[in-house]
Amino acid sequence: MNYHHVLERIHSEIVSLSPVGKVADYIPELAKIDPNKFGFSLSPVGGGGPVEVGDATERFSIQSIAKVLALALALAGGADEVWERVGVEPSGNPFNSLVQLEYEAGIPRNPLINPGAIVISDILISRLPSPKRDLLAFVRKISGCGTVTFNEAVATSEACCGYRNIAVANLMKSFGNIRNSVADVLDFYVHMCSLEMSCRELAHTFLYFADPIRYNRMGSDFLTDAQVKRINAVMLMCGFYDEAGEFAYGVGLPGKSGVGGGIVAVCPNEFSVAVWSPRLNRKGNSYLGTEALSRLTTLTGLSIF
Amino acid sequence: MNYHHVLERIHSEIVSLSPVGKVADYIPELAKIDPNKFGFSLSPVGGGGPVEVGDATERFSIQSIAKVLALALALAGGADEVWERVGVEPSGNPFNSLVQLEYEAGIPRNPLINPGAIVISDILISRLPSPKRDLLAFVRKISGCGTVTFNEAVATSEACCGYRNIAVANLMKSFGNIRNSVADVLDFYVHMCSLEMSCRELAHTFLYFADPIRYNRMGSDFLTDAQVKRINAVMLMCGFYDEAGEFAYGVGLPGKSGVGGGIVAVCPNEFSVAVWSPRLNRKGNSYLGTEALSRLTTLTGLSIF
Amino acid sequence: MNYHHVLERIHSEIVSLSPVGKVADYIPELAKIDPNKFGFSLSPVGGGGPVEVGDATERFSIQSIAKVLALALALAGGADEVWERVGVEPSGNPFNSLVQLEYEAGIPRNPLINPGAIVISDILISRLPSPKRDLLAFVRKISGCGTVTFNEAVATSEACCGYRNIAVANLMKSFGNIRNSVADVLDFYVHMCSLEMSCRELAHTFLYFADPIRYNRMGSDFLTDAQVKRINAVMLMCGFYDEAGEFAYGVGLPGKSGVGGGIVAVCPNEFSVAVWSPRLNRKGNSYLGTEALSRLTTLTGLSIF
Amino acid sequence: MNYHHVLERIHSEIVSLSPVGKVADYIPELAKIDPNKFGFSLSPVGGGGPVEVGDATERFSIQSIAKVLALALALAGGADEVWERVGVEPSGNPFNSLVQLEYEAGIPRNPLINPGAIVISDILISRLPSPKRDLLAFVRKISGCGTVTFNEAVATSEACCGYRNIAVANLMKSFGNIRNSVADVLDFYVHMCSLEMSCRELAHTFLYFADPIRYNRMGSDFLTDAQVKRINAVMLMCGFYDEAGEFAYGVGLPGKSGVGGGIVAVCPNEFSVAVWSPRLNRKGNSYLGTEALSRLTTLTGLSIF
Repeated sequence: MNYHHVLERIHSEIVSLSPVGKVADYIPELAKIDPNKFGFSLSPVGGGGPVEVGDATERFSIQSIAKVLALALALAGGADEVWERVGVEPSGNPFNSLVQLEYEAGIPRNPLINPGAIVISDILISRLPSPKRDLLAFVRKISGCGTVTFNEAVATSEACCGYRNIAVANLMKSFGNIRNSVADVLDFYVHMCSLEMSCRELAHTFLYFADPIRYNRMGSDFLTDAQVKRINAVMLMCGFYDEAGEFAYGVGLPGKSGVGGGIVAVCPNEFSVAVWSPRLNRKGNSYLGTEALSRLTTLTGLSIF
Repeated sequence: MNYHHVLERIHSEIVSLSPVGKVADYIPELAKIDPNKFGFSLSPVGGGGPVEVGDATERFSIQSIAKVLALALALAGGADEVWERVGVEPSGNPFNSLVQLEYEAGIPRNPLINPGAIVISDILISRLPSPKRDLLAFVRKISGCGTVTFNEAVATSEACCGYRNIAVANLMKSFGNIRNSVADVLDFYVHMCSLEMSCRELAHTFLYFADPIRYNRMGSDFLTDAQVKRINAVMLMCGFYDEAGEFAYGVGLPGKSGVGGGIVAVCPNEFSVAVWSPRLNRKGNSYLGTEALSRLTTLTGLSIF
Repeated sequence: MNYHHVLERIHSEIVSLSPVGKVADYIPELAKIDPNKFGFSLSPVGGGGPVEVGDATERFSIQSIAKVLALALALAGGADEVWERVGVEPSGNPFNSLVQLEYEAGIPRNPLINPGAIVISDILISRLPSPKRDLLAFVRKISGCGTVTFNEAVATSEACCGYRNIAVANLMKSFGNIRNSVADVLDFYVHMCSLEMSCRELAHTFLYFADPIRYNRMGSDFLTDAQVKRINAVMLMCGFYDEAGEFAYGVGLPGKSGVGGGIVAVCPNEFSVAVWSPRLNRKGNSYLGTEALSRLTTLTGLSIF
Repeated sequence: MNYHHVLERIHSEIVSLSPVGKVADYIPELAKIDPNKFGFSLSPVGGGGPVEVGDATERFSIQSIAKVLALALALAGGADEVWERVGVEPSGNPFNSLVQLEYEAGIPRNPLINPGAIVISDILISRLPSPKRDLLAFVRKISGCGTVTFNEAVATSEACCGYRNIAVANLMKSFGNIRNSVADVLDFYVHMCSLEMSCRELAHTFLYFADPIRYNRMGSDFLTDAQVKRINAVMLMCGFYDEAGEFAYGVGLPGKSGVGGGIVAVCPNEFSVAVWSPRLNRKGNSYLGTEALSRLTTLTGLSIF
């Protein structure tokens, strides 16, 4: 498969589309981003990458994409507690809804919506000696990139106006599903979401979830084959909030989006891919990013279905 | 009407009932109360009161009953803002539900459920120069009792574990319906709920809502006749959470309950009444208090219907 | 109280208001009505009525107002079964919502929303030897008017397009809360709603709920004092769907509206009243009817609060 | 891969498990089935099948599995109308819930929950000259089995007590999303659900969704590659009601269950599989069937993730 031709063709088609959607503006720092950025990077299983076009080496705020990494770290440290405190079902609701939490006793539907990622944060800060530093070390290890770091301005910016997340965390605490102080949990959470990576770095990182040889190389103390496959299942079912079905139907790959405009996706045994375009659709997913990935699976004929 | 005989008869019947329900235990300080306390005090319009039996002069935590007083104070200071930020409909849901808030853009259904009273608190601290002191001054004036005060231990106790209220306040703040800091608003709110009064003091206070001569005496700068009647309407529709219909049906008076086990009720032009018994039914309303008031309207034939 | 002056003043004020709202059009027969009709009739307790203005003697489709009469008939025949199968709480939802039914095992919140009135219909056709004829006989007796009858064209019109009611009835049947065939129950229900009465006839009928002497004269085999008061309580809490609080707050009387544009209301020991204006507000209640009643209680100072 | 050994190992493990769950009893005819039946059949892509153990050639009621076949037939006749009237999102609710329908204007979340399959039925009877006969012809063609037929007793049994489905269909009709008479639509629907097939026949039928060569052989007038993949996506997201995430996580294959105890699943380019065990878990999916498929993907290492 000549991925280079495919990505270039998609790039040329994409840039000719009229701009649709708007940049996330509820986090002041994110609102400043140039809406016309477009990066696209693909890492084939078995090597030959990175294949990339556009702003593929420029870092951006990965936001909710980090939830997958936090989940992986939490599962590596013991899966039982995770699945007692978070479900694996699609939510069928917006990413920050409190309704299900109230009806379902403070147990989030899955670890990739905000409430679920906040519980994962709580689990991690209970387990990790230096939570933020340890998370960073893990992300640097799995990404193979020692300079990945938090953006303190973004973290502060999100913390300042994140009343909905404070509400979510306190509601779960009222049910006993948050064990640490809400302030500590959300400090960890907003730092996690403030991680900055480029498409190249993200595609390389998520190759871990596409390539059994790679994830076996991480060592036996990390995730098992079965756990990696299950993280992929969770991404497919839950990675796009109430647009998960649309993404599975139109793209056909496990993936995860962030309000910074990034999307990662995984085609097991074939490739991992990351795309970045800051304009979001009504559901909070990158408009052109989704479009690019849909064209990728159509042109290559590669999807999980 | 010989109210004395009526109250004594009810008292003697009530004490022979087997104890049902349990004392509120989610606020540690309230859990310590003697569950067998029973106070009952009635103030007839036109004088002749107080008529009382049992522990009618012992102070207890009035809790949500204070929401009516806060509403009165807020309406006196300008009704338009109040009704733009809070509705007048029964909620049909438990007192601390977040579901409707999320569906209805952070506007609470009415001022007597927790979210509504928190918005009223926000309005009051924006308006009052010294919010807690000014509230206390108002309550002392309307109750005619200069020693009424907050119970700091109860306020602290509620603040410590009130994660649900923190969630509610932050959710409303995310919709722009809380203007001050959540910490300040909830500090005011928990103090308001920590007010301690006796049945005698409560019945005397709520005579204000039953006796036009009394409320006209408060001075023209306070509530109008129409406003007093409307507060009664709100109490009837919303004073007992998702048991409002049951109370209207079984008792037939506007009223308000608190998790401290108190209930006040008003029969316009006839009497005001307060009853206290700490054991609560499943909906959070005093079990014997409701029973006593039901017998009161049956024996006297006096209700609003 | 010179009710004549009051009604004439209200009438002259009302006609000068610009027309707002629209006539119910989901039932084809109702859509044909002249939107500018306005009738208003008041029956004082103790005699002196009818006091009336406008089209007070013209019959119209009373629609949901009939639910109160059906409830009265059902309670007269045995209250226990009624309250096992229907609640007394406000619904906080539109009149034909299925959501609560699904969450609450097919038990409607109250007898004045569609699902509740359909259960009442089911109870009545199980009890009455000739259900429709017996209902008509009862309405003729309580209204004192032997010519009141069903409008078959309206009944047919509603039956034809009442998919929502068929859905409601089948959902309740799936929970076991409808015992007869859905077709029979809805045939009774649409006939009941098709009853035609004038404001004068309605005010006279509902005097029954305002005047203890009148309802005691109906005979000891009918409703007790307590039952009449409780029907008034149910009207206040539930008579205006999700606008019940607004009506209690703005008007302050127990009452019931119908999509034909009629509203009845009761001021116990003072008067009963009926008003008719076909234009409805967004909640399905008569726009000018509500306005007229609000002015009535303001001008007379008579309400239950 | 020696599928024979795998299936035999699973069979021997499964039979030693203690019986859990209960047979569907809301449809009288289904309640009569022997709960200890167990059939398992696998069709490898590229031939070599069927591989099977247990009661793999005994026919049973496929129930909701038929929804996938109806969807395929509807898509083949024109996809645009399908996706205007039904969504592709997981419902996150039980299979027969009305709540979302009411909130979402009568548009079902996806075609594999009851409301969605009822809309698909409505589409098909509008399009097909002899709807039931034409459906049967299609199923016989895709299954390669000319004796597959409806079980009239099961269809009648389901029609008689399917009040919930009547409610669902009428609710959607009130929103305009059912075009034919509810009686006709549900007659088609219950016949479709009454289809009887064996595991062998089901596995062979669903090989169509696993094997591109096979579905290309159906002819260019049928589904495209992309449509087949999308049906697989819909199965994965929506095939197990509010247990879809659990199945994706635990099994990792697109599939569909029926209350008759059958489950089909598809591993694209590898195999199709059908399993039958009538005892259901709380969510209405076959208990041992799910267990068997989970072991299948674990033992073979073959899943879509």
